[in-house]
Amino acid sequence: MNFTVTHTEGAARRGKLVLPHGEVDTPQFMPVGTVASVRAIAPDDLWRVGAQIVLGNTYHLLLRPGPEVVAQMGGLHRFMSWEGNLLTDSGGFQVYSLAEQRKISEEGAVFRSHLDGSRQELTPERATAIQLQLGGDILMAFDECPPSQSPRAYHEEALGRTTRWAVRCKQAWLREDPQREHALFGIVQGGLHEDLRIRHAQEIAELDFEGNALGGFSVGEAPQAMWEGVARAAPLLPAQKPRYLMGVGTPEDLVRCVLAGVDLFDCVLPTRVARNGLLFTRRGRLQIKAARYARDPGPPDPDCGCYTCRTFSRAYLRHLFAAQELLAFRLNSIHNLAFYLDLMRELREAIERGEAQRRAGNILERFAAGE
Amino acid sequence: MNFTVTHTEGAARRGKLVLPHGEVDTPQFMPVGTVASVRAIAPDDLWRVGAQIVLGNTYHLLLRPGPEVVAQMGGLHRFMSWEGNLLTDSGGFQVYSLAEQRKISEEGAVFRSHLDGSRQELTPERATAIQLQLGGDILMAFDECPPSQSPRAYHEEALGRTTRWAVRCKQAWLREDPQREHALFGIVQGGLHEDLRIRHAQEIAELDFEGNALGGFSVGEAPQAMWEGVARAAPLLPAQKPRYLMGVGTPEDLVRCVLAGVDLFDCVLPTRVARNGLLFTRRGRLQIKAARYARDPGPPDPDCGCYTCRTFSRAYLRHLFAAQELLAFRLNSIHNLAFYLDLMRELREAIERGEAQRRAGNILERFAAGE
Repeated sequence: MNFTVTHTEGAARRGKLVLPHGEVDTPQFMPVGTVASVRAIAPDDLWRVGAQIVLGNTYHLLLRPGPEVVAQMGGLHRFMSWEGNLLTDSGGFQVYSLAEQRKISEEGAVFRSHLDGSRQELTPERATAIQLQLGGDILMAFDECPPSQSPRAYHEEALGRTTRWAVRCKQAWLREDPQREHALFGIVQGGLHEDLRIRHAQEIAELDFEGNALGGFSVGEAPQAMWEGVARAAPLLPAQKPRYLMGVGTPEDLVRCVLAGVDLFDCVLPTRVARNGLLFTRRGRLQIKAARYARDPGPPDPDCGCYTCRTFSRAYLRHLFAAQELLAFRLNSIHNLAFYLDLMRELREAIERGEAQRRAGNILERFAAGE
Repeated sequence: MNFTVTHTEGAARRGKLVLPHGEVDTPQFMPVGTVASVRAIAPDDLWRVGAQIVLGNTYHLLLRPGPEVVAQMGGLHRFMSWEGNLLTDSGGFQVYSLAEQRKISEEGAVFRSHLDGSRQELTPERATAIQLQLGGDILMAFDECPPSQSPRAYHEEALGRTTRWAVRCKQAWLREDPQREHALFGIVQGGLHEDLRIRHAQEIAELDFEGNALGGFSVGEAPQAMWEGVARAAPLLPAQKPRYLMGVGTPEDLVRCVLAGVDLFDCVLPTRVARNGLLFTRRGRLQIKAARYARDPGPPDPDCGCYTCRTFSRAYLRHLFAAQELLAFRLNSIHNLAFYLDLMRELREAIERGEAQRRAGNILERFAAGE
C-alpha cells in the first residue's frame, strides 16, 4: 500500500492510495456491500458509477456464507466478481448494533447471531484471520464500539481494551500476512470526549498501522456535534496516512468531513434510502413517491449522468416505486451512488484548485435550497 | 407490419416480422413487462439477452399508472425506455384471473381492481383505445377467456361474444388508427373443444386481423393435453400471418409448440421462477438454493453466455438467494430470459436447416436427463 497526499487546502487533503486492485483517489466514498453484494447493485453498475473501493462486512459474511466458503471460492473479490479494491470491517460495530446476548471480555466478544441465534465468537486474532480469508485490500482492527451515550467510565474501559486488541490484531496480521499483502488500519474511539479522542489517537498512532480510522461517530449524536467532533479528531490522526471516517454519512456530512481532513468514507445510507424512494440531487432530497412527480418527464437530477438519469423520467421512477417493482431499487441505488461518487470527485477537484472551502459552501447552499 | 415465412419444416415455421421498432425473428419469445417493467430487469438487460419484443399488460397499466399518464409521457416505449417492439394484451385474461366482482355483458366487462377495489370497465372499444394510448406495435382484441373447466355451453356463449367483440375492436382500430400504425391481432378461444376451436378459428380468420392468437391454453390443463390442443389449433390459423400462443410456457412447451407451428410466445414463467430460485439450464432445472451448490465454483449453465453465467458462480448465486439479496432476482432473471431467447434462436436455426424435429428431440432429452 502506498499513500500520497498531492494537494491540501486547510485541513482538506487530495491524495492517491495505491492498493493491489487499483488506485483510489481520495477523498473517496466506499459503497457498502454488506453480504458480498451492494444491495440491488451488480459489479458492472459499480464500475459505471465510478466506484474504486467497496466495503464488505465481516460480521455478515461470518454468519453467511461463512469465511471458509468465500476463501474456497477464491476470496471475496472473486466470489462477488468485483475487480476493484475491497475494505473489510472487523465486525466490531455489528457486534454492538446487531448481535444478541453479547458478552465482552478481555479475550474478545461472544454473541449470538441475529439470523439464527447461533453462538459466535470474535477475538482480535479471529477477526484478523477471517478478514485474511476474505482477502480484502484493507483490513480493520477489531474494536469495541460503545454507544456514544455510554458513561465516560465505560468509554475509558473500552478504549483501553480497544488499544490492547489493536496490538493483538497487528501481531496476528504480522504473523499471518508477513508479506503485508493486505493493509491493516487501526481504529480510534472515544465518542465525543475530546480528551479521550486525543489519548486514544496517540495510542493507536504509536502502533503504526498503515492507515487510521475514526469509529464511534454518527451513532446517534446531532450532526453539528459530529462535525465538530470529527473536525477536532481528524487532525489527531497521522497526516501521512489515510484517514477513514467509519459509517458516515449524509451528503452534508461528507462535504464537512472532507474539509476536516477525512480521506475515506463508507455508509449504507445512499443505497438504503434509495430503496425507500429517497433520491439525492444537486438541488436537495427528492422523495420520488410524491404525487407531483407522476407526470414529470424530467430526469431525477438534470445534472447527473448516471444510467438512471440518462434513461428514465421521474414519472417512470415514481411509477416503479409506487408499484414496488424490483427495478426501482436498482435504479434508485445506481443514482444515489453516482451522486455520492460525483460529489467526492467534485470535492477532489476543488481541493486541487484550492477552492474546496468555497465550493463546499456552494454545494451545501444549493443542496439546502431545493428545487 | 409485414410478415414473411422464410422456412418451414412440417408444421414448424421460421419467419420474419417487420414492426415499427425493428425486425422480430420468429419463432420468438416475448418477455413480459407487466407494469412497464420486466420484473427486476432493465431495458439494457433486455437488449443484452437479445429480446426483440416485450409484452405490456393493459389491465395492470390501466390500474397503475393509468394510460393517460403513459400517453402523456410519450407512450409505453418512451415511458419504460424500451426501444424495441412492444405488444400489449387487451386485459381480457386478467379480468378473469385477477379482477374482483367481475360482470360480463354484451357491452363488456365491469370489475373491481385487485389493488384498490376501484370500479373499472373494459369494453372492446375502451381496450382498443387504451392500447392505442399505450402505443404498442401490436395490439390484441379484447376477448373473454373462460376457465378451461367451464361448461361447454359457457364456452359457446363466450366464443360468440368474443367474435362480436373482435368485430367491435377492429372497427374501433380502423376508426382510431386509420394509418394502421399499430397492428391488431385477433384471439381464438374454445378451450380443449376441437369443434369450437375450428368454428372460432374460422370466425376470427374471416375478420382478417394482421395476426392471430390462441388464447385459453395453459390455464390448468395437463401439458400433454395442451400440446395436443395447440398442435390441432395452430394449423387452423391463417398460415401467412403470425400465430401467437398466449401465456405459454415452460421450455418443453416452447419446443413442442414451435413444432406445432406457433410463431410468438409470452410467459411470466422464466422471470417468476427466477425470483423463486429456479434456473433453467440446458441440462434441466436447477434449484439454486440447494445446499450442494454452496461451494460450486461453476456457472449456472456452462453453455450459456449471459452476464450471470459469464460472471458469477453457483456458490455466489446460492448465497445471494439464501440471503434474499435483491441482486439475486435480477441475475436469476437475466439468465432465465437468456435461456429462453437462446432456445428460440436454436429452434429457428434448426428450422432453417430442416433439423427442427431432430434438434427438438435432443433438446428435450438433454433437458430431461439433468446433470
